[in-house]
Amino acid sequence: MRALLLSAAFLALTAAAPPKKLTPNDVAAAAPASAWRTIPAEDLLVMTMAGGGRVVIQLAPEFAPVHVANIRKFAAANYWQGAAVYRVQDNYVAQWGINEAKRALSAGAVAHPPHEYTRSARGLSLTPLGSSDPYARSVGFSRGWPVALYKDGSASLTHCYGTVGVGRDLHPDTGTGGELYAIIGHGPRQLDRNIAIVGRVVAGIEQLSALPRGSETMGFYKEGLVAKPIVGITLASTYPAAVRPSFQYLDTQSASFARYLRIKKNRDDDFYRVAAGGADLCNVPVPVRPTPGR
Amino acid sequence: MRALLLSAAFLALTAAAPPKKLTPNDVAAAAPASAWRTIPAEDLLVMTMAGGGRVVIQLAPEFAPVHVANIRKFAAANYWQGAAVYRVQDNYVAQWGINEAKRALSAGAVAHPPHEYTRSARGLSLTPLGSSDPYARSVGFSRGWPVALYKDGSASLTHCYGTVGVGRDLHPDTGTGGELYAIIGHGPRQLDRNIAIVGRVVAGIEQLSALPRGSETMGFYKEGLVAKPIVGITLASTYPAAVRPSFQYLDTQSASFARYLRIKKNRDDDFYRVAAGGADLCNVPVPVRPTPGR
Repeated sequence: MRALLLSAAFLALTAAAPPKKLTPNDVAAAAPASAWRTIPAEDLLVMTMAGGGRVVIQLAPEFAPVHVANIRKFAAANYWQGAAVYRVQDNYVAQWGINEAKRALSAGAVAHPPHEYTRSARGLSLTPLGSSDPYARSVGFSRGWPVALYKDGSASLTHCYGTVGVGRDLHPDTGTGGELYAIIGHGPRQLDRNIAIVGRVVAGIEQLSALPRGSETMGFYKEGLVAKPIVGITLASTYPAAVRPSFQYLDTQSASFARYLRIKKNRDDDFYRVAAGGADLCNVPVPVRPTPGR
Repeated sequence: MRALLLSAAFLALTAAAPPKKLTPNDVAAAAPASAWRTIPAEDLLVMTMAGGGRVVIQLAPEFAPVHVANIRKFAAANYWQGAAVYRVQDNYVAQWGINEAKRALSAGAVAHPPHEYTRSARGLSLTPLGSSDPYARSVGFSRGWPVALYKDGSASLTHCYGTVGVGRDLHPDTGTGGELYAIIGHGPRQLDRNIAIVGRVVAGIEQLSALPRGSETMGFYKEGLVAKPIVGITLASTYPAAVRPSFQYLDTQSASFARYLRIKKNRDDDFYRVAAGGADLCNVPVPVRPTPGR
């Protein structure tokens, strides 16, 4: 950890040494343009926080189409006017939105979406993680998403750091999408198949993860205390082209991702003494970058 | 997630319903006094942050005796005077201490401690997790600690949320303990066996996890910007008895812990639709509480 304080000196010392072993980030940084996939602008939800910080969320219409359609309608109808982060529970979630009991649903939104907690595994183009998983029969990556496959033929997105899901009341309620949360701690995978995952944070997670923790049960803020108002939640597709946020993920079927995954499981750069020989799904975040030249 | 906003109404509705299924927290809260173990005061490191917040760390002398002895000497000698949190990297670590190059080692401290990254598995009283693990042959709990066992007969503590380790330069350096980090994101288990783990945060992790993220590479704060000075790092054993911090952990060989673990792996309270049937090690934090009546 301290190492990098000394990196300039270290690099000078090793100028004539054998080629440096690559880190996972090295592999991602060197991936060719052809290995990156641009996220469609209608799949990017942009939250502007009071103070100007921005959280960008990639939506997952392949996994939760009705919830994602609701979220797009809410964004278009300015449903979230006056929204705020109202709950931050350490090592768990930051949660935001509008109290659904107090605001009429946007036109065309579905009041009681179906249980989009799983979908059929058919149609997924799976790159296996290749390590065991305590929560699912197998796990891997499909079109940039971490996914779990179950014995019954179903598949789900997984609760990893940055995963965005839909707040809900007790089962069988599924939530509308008007209240959302992002994971800001160790991936609480027990929530998989129990809640609708609608996306993941691709930029600005620190706008949520570094917020003060709420003092009340489950990290709710004390009533009346709005720690972090949200001044706008809109789709990137509504931005003028010149300033439209744009992000790319590393194609999880690319050779670069395969190499990234291999090194994630077997770190052997100079800091390491023992390579793990495996990894857990949430420890292999799919690389994301701002689209170059934008 | 929204559920708890409505809990009063919900409890009223279900007053005549069958007994509520227990959550893991319910089990811990109901554990008898005999199931709790008081952490020795000489194993509790108390960091007082500017502003009065407190981080309490349980040290792990059974796993890293030389590093822990150093840390106790540093605390006694006021080695950390002027220390600060100087690095906060999102989903990874908060790191603090004193630049070791700039301060003489405390008397009796070891400048180059051995590689206390693993120890023999012999002598550990293991309660198995009972779920697969991608990083080790098997994992479980020993005297309140999450541990991993390896094929070569060695064992290590594991990098989970709140784990505290020793910052170091490149291998074979092990660090003195003068710079420490705490994990504030998904457990980076690839660090297991590569770095000395000396403890875990048992209280006040939010004093670290909610800090602003550093703007520089690897989350270092910009030079000259001290986000969070630390005004004191002392052992609990040096406090007057009346105000001495004291914590207990749930005995990982107790019937209460067995029940807690079973429910952690099979959540079936009213929020859940599908029980996971397993858990990963870092998703089963060992319950800790302030010692009652203190």
